[in-house]
Amino acid sequence: MYYYGREDLAYNLVFAATAEEEISGVNGIEKLLPELPPLSCGIVGEPTLMNMAVAERGLMVLDVLTTGRAGHAAREEGENALYKALTDIDWFRNYQFEKISPLLGKVKMTVTVIDTENKAHNVVPAQCHFVVDARVNELYTFEEVLETVHKHVKSEVKPRSTRLRSTSIPMDHPLVKAGLQLDRSYYGSPTTSDKALMPFPTLKMGPGDSARSHTADEYIHMHEIQEGIDLYIQLLNQVL
Amino acid sequence: MYYYGREDLAYNLVFAATAEEEISGVNGIEKLLPELPPLSCGIVGEPTLMNMAVAERGLMVLDVLTTGRAGHAAREEGENALYKALTDIDWFRNYQFEKISPLLGKVKMTVTVIDTENKAHNVVPAQCHFVVDARVNELYTFEEVLETVHKHVKSEVKPRSTRLRSTSIPMDHPLVKAGLQLDRSYYGSPTTSDKALMPFPTLKMGPGDSARSHTADEYIHMHEIQEGIDLYIQLLNQVL
Repeated sequence: MYYYGREDLAYNLVFAATAEEEISGVNGIEKLLPELPPLSCGIVGEPTLMNMAVAERGLMVLDVLTTGRAGHAAREEGENALYKALTDIDWFRNYQFEKISPLLGKVKMTVTVIDTENKAHNVVPAQCHFVVDARVNELYTFEEVLETVHKHVKSEVKPRSTRLRSTSIPMDHPLVKAGLQLDRSYYGSPTTSDKALMPFPTLKMGPGDSARSHTADEYIHMHEIQEGIDLYIQLLNQVL
Repeated sequence: MYYYGREDLAYNLVFAATAEEEISGVNGIEKLLPELPPLSCGIVGEPTLMNMAVAERGLMVLDVLTTGRAGHAAREEGENALYKALTDIDWFRNYQFEKISPLLGKVKMTVTVIDTENKAHNVVPAQCHFVVDARVNELYTFEEVLETVHKHVKSEVKPRSTRLRSTSIPMDHPLVKAGLQLDRSYYGSPTTSDKALMPFPTLKMGPGDSARSHTADEYIHMHEIQEGIDLYIQLLNQVL
């Protein structure tokens, strides 16, 4: 709006309000991008208290399946898939990847879901499935993380999605330099956003506090929005 | 049938064909017993190759619930209930009760089912539930086993059913003595049966092989049935 009448800008601006961000859905930003002309860079308006998230951890979800052999629990029969899974769960829980990012910290793996197909108390379970939420810093590719996992884990491991890669924008990018001029601080963000789906440099920066996300009565102050608009204008003024 | 016309017997015989044995249901033997006159002893016709199962392990099923605190998996939030459960699962897996029965062996606990209420990959689970199948020998009461469990396990433990107690018939019981006369061997059975629901001494003895139970195309040979009838008659002849 603010720049709409101006014909002397160095760049064209595109404003996109897209859906399905929370689920990184295929009907969101991913669907819009092919409709747009080539893009040089972007700002993603996630709540960062108007500071600069210059890097974002990637997200890879792993489905892990441990297989044993069914048997009657009363006899010494079968091979308990749940017991076999324990060893691998312990590995995911305790393994530390060597390279620690100054911005994004460690690669973090968490086992968050588990279930046995078997629901009968007297049957030794032949299968145990669990889910690993892996947050990957920019120093590893998903393929490298997977390779390490396969090396240490006996169960069958299937990455559910590898779309949400770790992203970062160079510290000497014009958008970042402009933000530094305005005394905005910068950091690496532990959460992923639509940023991960855009194949060009993006800066995550927006009004509101990320810690309020996904809680009851999520809110944003009016003054935060007003300050956000002012800061976006000051930032873009330096670039355009 | 064989004894129906006889009026000179020392005991009356009752033949009961009951349902719901596999699930130890309340509409099976448990429903019939109050309808019958007082009973001195019984024979349970489970497949034992016509040998004598003089004792049976008891079955206690435990529902175990570990509680933590939910949080976002990308941050260092929450308290992972699944991780807390691992410690207790390890205990159930490895603990050995001291007293070992010559007939029924050890008390055997097996974790057979597990699930987290949480199904979202990015949420640290606040709850983890698992099921323990505990086979108890005649040297422990269920209460004693539970007491030991409570002493070692931090999770909340609820016995699902304590109806299927360990049972045994004395070695000098007339039925057992009659069987020994016929050169039938005796043993302790790892599986439970309706025997556990009868409040009087019972001998588990019947044609067919228990190892064929619960498998595809379960079967019994004709000659096993014929031999079974003959042996039942020889056994009862000694008692009646």
